[in-house]
Amino acid sequence: MKVSVLGATGYAGAELLRILYQHPQADVVHITSESHTGESIDSLYPHLRGFYDMKLESMQDIRAIGEDSDFIFIGLPHGHAMEVARALADLPVRIIDLGADFRFDDTAVYEAWYHVKHTYADAPRVYGLAELYRDAVRSAKIIGNAGCFTTASILALAPLAKSHLIDTKSIIVDAKSGVTGAGRSPKLANHFPELYDNFRAYNVAHHRHTPEIEQAIAEIADEETLINFTPHLVPMGRGILATCYADLKEGVTPELIDAAYEKLYDKEFFIRLLGRGGYPSTKEVRGSNFCDIAWHVDERTHRVVALSAIDNLVKGAAGQAVQNFNIACGFDEKTALDVAPMYP
Amino acid sequence: MKVSVLGATGYAGAELLRILYQHPQADVVHITSESHTGESIDSLYPHLRGFYDMKLESMQDIRAIGEDSDFIFIGLPHGHAMEVARALADLPVRIIDLGADFRFDDTAVYEAWYHVKHTYADAPRVYGLAELYRDAVRSAKIIGNAGCFTTASILALAPLAKSHLIDTKSIIVDAKSGVTGAGRSPKLANHFPELYDNFRAYNVAHHRHTPEIEQAIAEIADEETLINFTPHLVPMGRGILATCYADLKEGVTPELIDAAYEKLYDKEFFIRLLGRGGYPSTKEVRGSNFCDIAWHVDERTHRVVALSAIDNLVKGAAGQAVQNFNIACGFDEKTALDVAPMYP
Amino acid sequence: MKVSVLGATGYAGAELLRILYQHPQADVVHITSESHTGESIDSLYPHLRGFYDMKLESMQDIRAIGEDSDFIFIGLPHGHAMEVARALADLPVRIIDLGADFRFDDTAVYEAWYHVKHTYADAPRVYGLAELYRDAVRSAKIIGNAGCFTTASILALAPLAKSHLIDTKSIIVDAKSGVTGAGRSPKLANHFPELYDNFRAYNVAHHRHTPEIEQAIAEIADEETLINFTPHLVPMGRGILATCYADLKEGVTPELIDAAYEKLYDKEFFIRLLGRGGYPSTKEVRGSNFCDIAWHVDERTHRVVALSAIDNLVKGAAGQAVQNFNIACGFDEKTALDVAPMYP
Amino acid sequence: MKVSVLGATGYAGAELLRILYQHPQADVVHITSESHTGESIDSLYPHLRGFYDMKLESMQDIRAIGEDSDFIFIGLPHGHAMEVARALADLPVRIIDLGADFRFDDTAVYEAWYHVKHTYADAPRVYGLAELYRDAVRSAKIIGNAGCFTTASILALAPLAKSHLIDTKSIIVDAKSGVTGAGRSPKLANHFPELYDNFRAYNVAHHRHTPEIEQAIAEIADEETLINFTPHLVPMGRGILATCYADLKEGVTPELIDAAYEKLYDKEFFIRLLGRGGYPSTKEVRGSNFCDIAWHVDERTHRVVALSAIDNLVKGAAGQAVQNFNIACGFDEKTALDVAPMYP
Repeated sequence: MKVSVLGATGYAGAELLRILYQHPQADVVHITSESHTGESIDSLYPHLRGFYDMKLESMQDIRAIGEDSDFIFIGLPHGHAMEVARALADLPVRIIDLGADFRFDDTAVYEAWYHVKHTYADAPRVYGLAELYRDAVRSAKIIGNAGCFTTASILALAPLAKSHLIDTKSIIVDAKSGVTGAGRSPKLANHFPELYDNFRAYNVAHHRHTPEIEQAIAEIADEETLINFTPHLVPMGRGILATCYADLKEGVTPELIDAAYEKLYDKEFFIRLLGRGGYPSTKEVRGSNFCDIAWHVDERTHRVVALSAIDNLVKGAAGQAVQNFNIACGFDEKTALDVAPMYP
Repeated sequence: MKVSVLGATGYAGAELLRILYQHPQADVVHITSESHTGESIDSLYPHLRGFYDMKLESMQDIRAIGEDSDFIFIGLPHGHAMEVARALADLPVRIIDLGADFRFDDTAVYEAWYHVKHTYADAPRVYGLAELYRDAVRSAKIIGNAGCFTTASILALAPLAKSHLIDTKSIIVDAKSGVTGAGRSPKLANHFPELYDNFRAYNVAHHRHTPEIEQAIAEIADEETLINFTPHLVPMGRGILATCYADLKEGVTPELIDAAYEKLYDKEFFIRLLGRGGYPSTKEVRGSNFCDIAWHVDERTHRVVALSAIDNLVKGAAGQAVQNFNIACGFDEKTALDVAPMYP
Repeated sequence: MKVSVLGATGYAGAELLRILYQHPQADVVHITSESHTGESIDSLYPHLRGFYDMKLESMQDIRAIGEDSDFIFIGLPHGHAMEVARALADLPVRIIDLGADFRFDDTAVYEAWYHVKHTYADAPRVYGLAELYRDAVRSAKIIGNAGCFTTASILALAPLAKSHLIDTKSIIVDAKSGVTGAGRSPKLANHFPELYDNFRAYNVAHHRHTPEIEQAIAEIADEETLINFTPHLVPMGRGILATCYADLKEGVTPELIDAAYEKLYDKEFFIRLLGRGGYPSTKEVRGSNFCDIAWHVDERTHRVVALSAIDNLVKGAAGQAVQNFNIACGFDEKTALDVAPMYP
Repeated sequence: MKVSVLGATGYAGAELLRILYQHPQADVVHITSESHTGESIDSLYPHLRGFYDMKLESMQDIRAIGEDSDFIFIGLPHGHAMEVARALADLPVRIIDLGADFRFDDTAVYEAWYHVKHTYADAPRVYGLAELYRDAVRSAKIIGNAGCFTTASILALAPLAKSHLIDTKSIIVDAKSGVTGAGRSPKLANHFPELYDNFRAYNVAHHRHTPEIEQAIAEIADEETLINFTPHLVPMGRGILATCYADLKEGVTPELIDAAYEKLYDKEFFIRLLGRGGYPSTKEVRGSNFCDIAWHVDERTHRVVALSAIDNLVKGAAGQAVQNFNIACGFDEKTALDVAPMYP
């Protein structure tokens, strides 16, 4: 398959190139960057020295790229992918967008939280969280790759929602992310001396991943859903830990919870259940496409606390994109992703 | 005042020595360690080279130390301070225990969570969280210095509880601590390569600071209180950030919340209010006795999210102890503590 | 090929298992640990959950393991591999020792620096630094895998030594390592709060990698060689940077130096030359088997400063072992190692 | 004394404000910033909330500031202080410049390394490294505060130079600094994800601190001096460790070296000698004005390895400035600086 990467110079783009190098059926044919057109990727990312020798192109002639590609991965800021997809609507090329443009069923929700007009509201799209939407991904024209915080949160909560064990209006997700999630553009907040040896929250009550989690949980549970989502910045490079709280419904026992997780994820290679009482840690999934999940039942407060860990650049971005790509192409879902995490 | 430090070789003990050096009215006369008796403190903590020249003593002859001291600070593991205090009950020496032995009104709660029998249940003690119990501290014989997580949590929640703005049975505290909170004994979990570039939760649903927070909030609100407390380990040295969630009572407005914080903390030097929408960060209080607090109102979920940051070794341990010492002695409460945080 | 790993529970052992999982021609048949016999590897290293299902065995019946293996990797502390190798001397199994037992031509040097008697001085061994000793590795019975600091140092200095451009008695290697190099046993010096946000040297003038570097450079240059080696601990997980200084011989020009590097490493996949004036960085090789090298000429002092970066657990241990294994087996040298570094 | 800080918004400026707050004889009257004129310092540095309530001014009317100040601290980029000093030449105000403008006896050296013309070559200046130039500092009109790397390097080498124990043309200084040394302006190289968990060298063979070290050592030894200086960036906030190598002169014994250090620094409060074989570490001086020094003799190579650690923002900048201020004013040299380092 001929694949192209638009916006290859962000962290997710570079990670995609790292993973695709291991993929025997993917041949990277175009990589683009508007601000670094004509440069080589290793002048921006020296760790890739020796791996890719093509130059970064402009995506101005997007039709030509679309005609020359079987799949296009988009690593652009939100608002751009809808334009690209519209321009390529009539071509056979398929699209995996790592941004938010195609994650919402209801574009009004997208517009309300992202503050831009959606220009391709009727795009034939699916939500790209493979473990929960695998069948839809298979034949999709456009895949809206799930976000990083949302992947961790939804995977932790889905079994509880699906088995109707929790009050879906009581959910709180307290999430913590490494700094690569904030992108590669230097700014004071992410300047090393400011962030290092420091911990803080940001975007309380208005982070854009909130409606994305609500959409998925509401659909899975088929119940009204309301979520408090609070992101924090951890002084580390990669990794997300989501700590999810929910009130248990009357009569829910720990055993019912155990069964819900086992039933939903029993066959999932990329989900590793640590069981009741376990402690996922971000380093144990670093560099891999795994989502490690555990849960605790607090009998005093009658709440469940679900914990999940992912690498935000892999299962939260590039790895998940390749997983979706594998499904969409009919390849073994693990192709290029069957690697152990890098520890310590 | 002649002061002594029992268990001076833990991180809190060393921090106490750092702070007491700045105190013009405190003269450190005895420091003890059972495992390092006869050694100098700078052989264990070279950063203190040149500051203290006495040797570490054994506390076996605790009566002699008690007779030679006006104040004793105790930095021993829980279970030891009650023995010390009992042995010194008839002496004029006063005690500030940095451990948990004297934090609970009801020793049955202590015994249930700490799994030891309390041998001095009728000790004349007060809870050492100065901003809320200042008057009691003034004349106390024994001060049970508040814990690190608890200080951050209680100070963040107290105004909401006191003004009856929240459902005190809905509280969730998601707390994050630097690694000094785990003490100085090496173990695999805190071995640098394991913890570095990593993030995880621990002790979900059964951390011992849970009942301490519940006791204080229940008393302040005079309402039944139930709290979910979840600690996490941040790959940094010092600092605690507490993210506290609570359901707002019917009709509570953001302005009422603002007023509650301002009313309670208006005159408090060591509490810095960042206001509604603010973001405390651990580095902005590092090395200082400040507790920075902010709050957010999520109108969608009708919850308040309160955030607080402290240095766990200062306001969460040694600094708070000196603050209590100042109050108990009638000194200016800021003595030795009127220093700016060390940033970055 | 059936391979076994003795001492699989150290960081190098675990890294070996991570890499070998990618190797299509290696089948791990035995893994051993004396202190964790009977346990699964993922109980010790949860990141490997799902990758290896065999139990850790004792190596007490080493003959049985030797008979059932084509290759044995040894990740034991120095002093053990010589015993293992002697016990298996008559079997066809071949050995790659990640420790120091088989790194020295002259066992008297080993004994002087390691303070143990060498019990297998006439072992048929080769020094396992593939780029410089590839031919010898092909048919070796026992391969003494080069050390981590030594790999970085020797690869940086070898072209200068081989082309006789430097005074080999003037060499200073100022090396810096991440903390995984210190192993997995918890101790105060490597306790997170002590090492984090800290930097220091250790073992000045008597680190055991000194004679190993001297041996290689002396042999390559065929000149008397004397090296000052100073290791430092960097608060990070993986990675070594070696800063190497040497006086240039009379008349040596920058161009001669450039030519020396290019000539020696022109065809080497795992050596990436950043050229004169370049700056290798440890993160750009993290998780990979690359050694990035650059050099600077200080015309004022007539010295060359050579810089090299490796991942101490990969090119400095497990990756190099697999590279040697590939050579020894006649496989493509890049098998299981043709992966891009993980950045950032 | 009325003191002002020009360029108060850099890390050194903010650190100066932190330290001056402790100074009973210093009253900060003006703080300036051209890019943040009219703002409060705590809007830029929230850790200073509550400590300074004046606004940042422009320094456009520098005469007015000069007339209203007894001392001016300058934290501006090089090239500005000479203009300020010239403008205030006729006023009684005295100046401590934290930059490089007044560090060189020979302004031609300054011009060659800093690439600007010196516009005040005959300024009545002294080099502000108190331990070595204390007498000159007392009555100086302009004090060129020593640089961070240079302070660590010179203090480590001075006893060897002064006692003529080393070949001053053989010196190599391999230095390592925390990231605060690179200033507060965000750029890709210091973006958290790039620098974190990473280690590299920079400015090999042409760092501007090279001639500053050479000037001091040449003067102290009264011998021709040539130094190789290599800085590295450590993924930590504060701290410098300098590893200094020099060839010993014929017949120099370890005891002569010990004596040289003891003789020169015997009475110095801010220099803590860890002795022969010791290991200074940056965390043991963090937040303090100490310079910890140790030395090792390598008998094999007949070299001495001297190690020194400082906090680059304190002894390497703001603390040293206050020390110079104390000397210049006739105050106790330790005023505002007699604090223990913050550990861990």
